[in-house]
Amino acid sequence: MIASGDFVLLKTEGGREYFASVRDEKLHTDLGIVDLKQLEGIDWGSAIESHLGKRFIALKPRAPDYFKHIRRTGAPMMPKDIGAIIASTGVCPTDVILDAGTGSGVLAIYLGTIAKKVITYEINEQFSVVAKKNVEHAGLSNIEVRHGNILEEIKTLDGSFDVITLDMQEAAKLVPDARRVLVAGGFLAAYSPFFEQAIEVRSAVEREGFGEVDTVIVSEQQLEVGKRGTRPSTRVGHTGFITIARK
Amino acid sequence: MIASGDFVLLKTEGGREYFASVRDEKLHTDLGIVDLKQLEGIDWGSAIESHLGKRFIALKPRAPDYFKHIRRTGAPMMPKDIGAIIASTGVCPTDVILDAGTGSGVLAIYLGTIAKKVITYEINEQFSVVAKKNVEHAGLSNIEVRHGNILEEIKTLDGSFDVITLDMQEAAKLVPDARRVLVAGGFLAAYSPFFEQAIEVRSAVEREGFGEVDTVIVSEQQLEVGKRGTRPSTRVGHTGFITIARK
Amino acid sequence: MIASGDFVLLKTEGGREYFASVRDEKLHTDLGIVDLKQLEGIDWGSAIESHLGKRFIALKPRAPDYFKHIRRTGAPMMPKDIGAIIASTGVCPTDVILDAGTGSGVLAIYLGTIAKKVITYEINEQFSVVAKKNVEHAGLSNIEVRHGNILEEIKTLDGSFDVITLDMQEAAKLVPDARRVLVAGGFLAAYSPFFEQAIEVRSAVEREGFGEVDTVIVSEQQLEVGKRGTRPSTRVGHTGFITIARK
Amino acid sequence: MIASGDFVLLKTEGGREYFASVRDEKLHTDLGIVDLKQLEGIDWGSAIESHLGKRFIALKPRAPDYFKHIRRTGAPMMPKDIGAIIASTGVCPTDVILDAGTGSGVLAIYLGTIAKKVITYEINEQFSVVAKKNVEHAGLSNIEVRHGNILEEIKTLDGSFDVITLDMQEAAKLVPDARRVLVAGGFLAAYSPFFEQAIEVRSAVEREGFGEVDTVIVSEQQLEVGKRGTRPSTRVGHTGFITIARK
Repeated sequence: MIASGDFVLLKTEGGREYFASVRDEKLHTDLGIVDLKQLEGIDWGSAIESHLGKRFIALKPRAPDYFKHIRRTGAPMMPKDIGAIIASTGVCPTDVILDAGTGSGVLAIYLGTIAKKVITYEINEQFSVVAKKNVEHAGLSNIEVRHGNILEEIKTLDGSFDVITLDMQEAAKLVPDARRVLVAGGFLAAYSPFFEQAIEVRSAVEREGFGEVDTVIVSEQQLEVGKRGTRPSTRVGHTGFITIARK
Repeated sequence: MIASGDFVLLKTEGGREYFASVRDEKLHTDLGIVDLKQLEGIDWGSAIESHLGKRFIALKPRAPDYFKHIRRTGAPMMPKDIGAIIASTGVCPTDVILDAGTGSGVLAIYLGTIAKKVITYEINEQFSVVAKKNVEHAGLSNIEVRHGNILEEIKTLDGSFDVITLDMQEAAKLVPDARRVLVAGGFLAAYSPFFEQAIEVRSAVEREGFGEVDTVIVSEQQLEVGKRGTRPSTRVGHTGFITIARK
Repeated sequence: MIASGDFVLLKTEGGREYFASVRDEKLHTDLGIVDLKQLEGIDWGSAIESHLGKRFIALKPRAPDYFKHIRRTGAPMMPKDIGAIIASTGVCPTDVILDAGTGSGVLAIYLGTIAKKVITYEINEQFSVVAKKNVEHAGLSNIEVRHGNILEEIKTLDGSFDVITLDMQEAAKLVPDARRVLVAGGFLAAYSPFFEQAIEVRSAVEREGFGEVDTVIVSEQQLEVGKRGTRPSTRVGHTGFITIARK
Repeated sequence: MIASGDFVLLKTEGGREYFASVRDEKLHTDLGIVDLKQLEGIDWGSAIESHLGKRFIALKPRAPDYFKHIRRTGAPMMPKDIGAIIASTGVCPTDVILDAGTGSGVLAIYLGTIAKKVITYEINEQFSVVAKKNVEHAGLSNIEVRHGNILEEIKTLDGSFDVITLDMQEAAKLVPDARRVLVAGGFLAAYSPFFEQAIEVRSAVEREGFGEVDTVIVSEQQLEVGKRGTRPSTRVGHTGFITIARK
């Protein structure tokens, strides 16, 4: 049953999707105005109608919905890579996570759907503004988007993070301080779009005494199922290198 | 600080690892007997000693540790595939998950570190016994391992699962009932080691009216970093097809 | 030194390319008319000029040039797959090769640059006309493009082919006769864009008693070298399955 | 029909294979002594017998046979990479090819089955001795294995090679001279097992003014066909980077 504070994904038969919350009063759409008060107390999967009589099914939004609906400020990290980071580091609901750089916030939002708390830094002010809005729309109050240079800001942070995720050009430079603010047994995960960066980060974590170091390339091919037969797609998702290391 | 009920990963300098709990009294190892009472109240990352004076560092265990230390009854699902399932379905701490077949319990344990509740079915009694022990050792009380044939047992279940994960030969046959017991907007994820199975499951979810259907092959190559240079490994992890579908 | 019958690739500084032959009299281009008589007796890599004074460098055309300049009637087989077929079957200058279906003739032309003789069948008349022109433009007189249904025509052929290459939907049906017309120790190579076809061909060659059977998926990723770094491309070439079998 | 100078692959029912030539008198095997005079004038695919009455079928050897039977002095280049080099450069029967370093001679032998002439340099004397024997056993008289340092020896060579293939650590250093001895329109192909080498070679060819530059990673996965189903193998062949460039 949908309760007062819940965030909801409203889906029309034509496949249009909107995020909404019972706290919001009204949702203005091309298919009419929706009175969101109707949501309270109905079951997940029930439908409400706009003032034009169009049906909107109310679904519980999940992480892939946030990925799909986020406003992008650059090429976002792909779910295959996010999944590899979550599984390699074992992100869980008691985790406090440090993330940099935020970008449009896709990784932070994914982590925020699982972890207790995510603090994420973005050096570009405009990107941080967009990321904040993306986080708000997802209704995730445990994610704190901070505008600033993590290379400096980390000096002010204490050692209490379970996981640190890095998607920034100068990731290698952050490694010594990242180690300091990780709990014993905590994981660092760095995403590097380029080979050269991957090698730099890899060297840095080895130099700083991290253990269980691993750098992987994750690829994902869709299976194309058509009338003439089935075959792997000719596209692999945006490719990057993920370096995992443990304190 | 380590508290009374906590599970702990004890690690020696030589790289040996043991799971333990403050509730246990003593841990017998090749490096001496460890009095586990010492753990209570010390900080994560601190060391305790065996009666032979060997040091054991106390770390917070994380999902990859469970993966590493689990007793295997077959080829387990790999973290790359588990990560893809978690990210594609958006597993989160409020989820109630149905999983079949359990196997050695790797996927159920991974899901259990994130979700509220996991119910997992295994048709092979011996496997289910091992899986139960694996779950106990991990200290995860929110995972319920049931011995039985899910194809029959599902008839007795109600429609309240947020995610259903399938790693069983007859996955396609379970699809209609799986749809019934999923919440609106919930996801089904089926792992198929073989192409033929993948096609069957894929057809079944399309026939049953699931949406957002996608079948992917996830590959992972390690980057081998050596003195002579860096190169992708010649091994890719155990490969399977993952079919995702949404109610 | 360029001799009378030679085919030549004429390349301008702007990167435009034309196939020509000393036997042709004149080449009409947007950059003026080129008197091809000038080619005879000059060195490979020398330049000739059009009547407008534009320079054209005369290069020895090679197989990748034919691939690039061919008129396409469908998605052509990619060089990575052609290379895998050549290497797996060991195509050499004494080989007589049977090829079906021709398509735009890319594979036949590649094989024709190496083998003694290539006979290729195309069931679609229009495609066979285009393929014939492609072969002519490449100046390869050892390739014979035949219009017809290989499933019937093969009944009229004798057993004297060193290699048989198949890129046709009904490849599996041709396997018994293909075996008959292969020399002992000769290879069959079948390219299947779809999984289902690959499995059919694979079953057929095993049923007919072929040895050294192997089905592979060849992928090729380009390395993208940019200012910010180096990374694998997100595209893999048109993917297919290659089944190799030996009589 | 087998003629006097021909090389022959003798294959027993049990799958044992021997290279032989009509010029040789006798072949001593575990299955008896084979009088090779019997080969002359019989058809390819016919059988001869040892003095113990064991049957040996006489097949025309092909490039993959040489790959299989070569004595290896290190990890050989794989057919998938050899195929990519042949297809990308368009190796053909009129080509004169320069190859370095020889290693066990696999690439040179493959090229020698197609090209007019292959000159190959190996800096390690012992390797060059093994490579010479491998070439002899294959009966390929158009391949010249030279022991020497190509970085010095190339100074003495003239510009008349159609293709240059490099599989050596210092490939980048050879690029300027390689360009000098290539014909206009000729191709250079460098195989680099490591990323760092690939980048070096890539930079070198761009600096020296080569065109049509491309660096690729070729992967090959076998399709495993078993009773339970079909799936891609978990092994990809020995992986390297191939840089192609044209003069």
